[in-house]
Amino acid sequence: MGEFEWIRHLWEPLGRAVTHPAVRQGIGDDGARLVVPAGHELVLSVDTLVEGGHFLPSIDPRDLGWRALAVNLSDLAAMGATPVAYTLALTCPGVSAPWFESFAAGLEELSRAHGIQLVGGDMTRGPLTLTLQVHGIVPENQALLRSGAGPGDLICVSGDLGAAAEALNWLESATDNADVAAVLARYHRPEPRVALGEQLRGQASAAIDISDGLLSDLGHVLRASGVGAEIDADRLPLNPAMLALAGRERALELALGGGDDYELCFTWPGTPATLEALLGDEHRVAVIGRITADTGLKLFDRGEPLTIGAAGHDHFRE
Amino acid sequence: MGEFEWIRHLWEPLGRAVTHPAVRQGIGDDGARLVVPAGHELVLSVDTLVEGGHFLPSIDPRDLGWRALAVNLSDLAAMGATPVAYTLALTCPGVSAPWFESFAAGLEELSRAHGIQLVGGDMTRGPLTLTLQVHGIVPENQALLRSGAGPGDLICVSGDLGAAAEALNWLESATDNADVAAVLARYHRPEPRVALGEQLRGQASAAIDISDGLLSDLGHVLRASGVGAEIDADRLPLNPAMLALAGRERALELALGGGDDYELCFTWPGTPATLEALLGDEHRVAVIGRITADTGLKLFDRGEPLTIGAAGHDHFRE
Repeated sequence: MGEFEWIRHLWEPLGRAVTHPAVRQGIGDDGARLVVPAGHELVLSVDTLVEGGHFLPSIDPRDLGWRALAVNLSDLAAMGATPVAYTLALTCPGVSAPWFESFAAGLEELSRAHGIQLVGGDMTRGPLTLTLQVHGIVPENQALLRSGAGPGDLICVSGDLGAAAEALNWLESATDNADVAAVLARYHRPEPRVALGEQLRGQASAAIDISDGLLSDLGHVLRASGVGAEIDADRLPLNPAMLALAGRERALELALGGGDDYELCFTWPGTPATLEALLGDEHRVAVIGRITADTGLKLFDRGEPLTIGAAGHDHFRE
Repeated sequence: MGEFEWIRHLWEPLGRAVTHPAVRQGIGDDGARLVVPAGHELVLSVDTLVEGGHFLPSIDPRDLGWRALAVNLSDLAAMGATPVAYTLALTCPGVSAPWFESFAAGLEELSRAHGIQLVGGDMTRGPLTLTLQVHGIVPENQALLRSGAGPGDLICVSGDLGAAAEALNWLESATDNADVAAVLARYHRPEPRVALGEQLRGQASAAIDISDGLLSDLGHVLRASGVGAEIDADRLPLNPAMLALAGRERALELALGGGDDYELCFTWPGTPATLEALLGDEHRVAVIGRITADTGLKLFDRGEPLTIGAAGHDHFRE
């Protein structure tokens, strides 16, 4: 099939399977049209996944579809935005219809969970490369930024950390160990924290999603806000399966430096009690430290200074 | 340099060099934020260029920057939208600082001409692939669609046709022939017809940009509108340099079937006089035929039926 047949066979049906009322026109013209409700801003973010760099050729295409959308939705979550629409620019060599259909099924599964509509894209021949752009809306001036953290704010992390980084050691293994299965599931099917981001908007002082590793990503918040931080490593929410596989010392390294977890790291300008009052029991959040006026990041473990080699991930440098 | 250094060194300065008031936040957070003026819709379109498929490795990176943005702006023109912001997802192998800087200079040159701001992107390692997404605004319900053409409407084309297709024969030639230079310039530096699109919105009955060839792209309009067309080949605006190089017979084929011209094809529900009253002398537009109630596309040359093999371009199929 050529591009136009694939559009009719696969992408137009996907664009009709999950719809959003802010989409006035989806796939099928030179561009899509969105309306943004009064008093709202449009938030957009784009991420590329390249075969070999971001995933292995052996990945299940259904997981790849999920993951490609998840890493983008995670950016909307970090902005506190509500998902509306996405585009897919798919560059691929001659691949099979089952591959395409499975990939699209993974996209559909996660897009359904978040009500985000496919509104356009492009299909080109070349080495497998996926660029997705997501679009969300947020009430004016309530977006979560990197630049708002202030001294004394609590530093918080959603979910748990380190599983995706540990999974990199097991991507091509054939073991049926339950811990291995658990970390692989976290790697292949990250859960973007969209609902948490929506609850935090207009409330948290800063936020970022943890794609390149906690220290690296928190570093962006500290630089943008002109502040520093103290982190208590013993308060890090370690993924239990990862901890069982890696042991405590390496678990701390993975939780601090490992990428691909797609949890949120945010700063809270209040107390643990006011945070709990906002979130209730709906979201698992750990307080792992505090923002300081002094710049730089200080790590402690059980009250003692901790030195660690983790530097975060830069896909382009590697 | 890694991704973060390139962002600081090149992309953030480019994002500040050309700014748009609808951009509330550009490069530097998990997402960009746009405001859409009341009574307007946001229009978005995405296009990928792959080395080897859409351009040769020998292309001047400055031309590549221009061209990558031009082909995307052309989609906004075809929607009648006013450019606001764009994103750049750049996948590339280890390339040099001069290459990056020259590429960015080409982007900046065209973005300055259209006042469109770079607001985000991604940089990844891999085979050279560029995905740009452009965002524009259009007054509500005035966007130019493919679906509005009606029987009796005039079929019109901006500028002239065939030069870019002829240029494909000369991409690696060393001649200093003026006609060759002219067609190569049209290929490397297409001029998106943004101002024409803005004038036509709310007025023309349908529009598309000619990226894959007039017959192929007009075919999309005919299908979307449920109509047919009669085209007079002798009224096609043939690019003069292309005509000199190709001769009349092949010139007609290139004008009808060749891609990459990025002119607008639109339908006009009025007379040549009412069209001229709208456009004045500002835009060169040729009337090349008429929409018919009978579906199918009929070609004539000097009153006689014309048969031609051109089928339009499908980058994915090839």
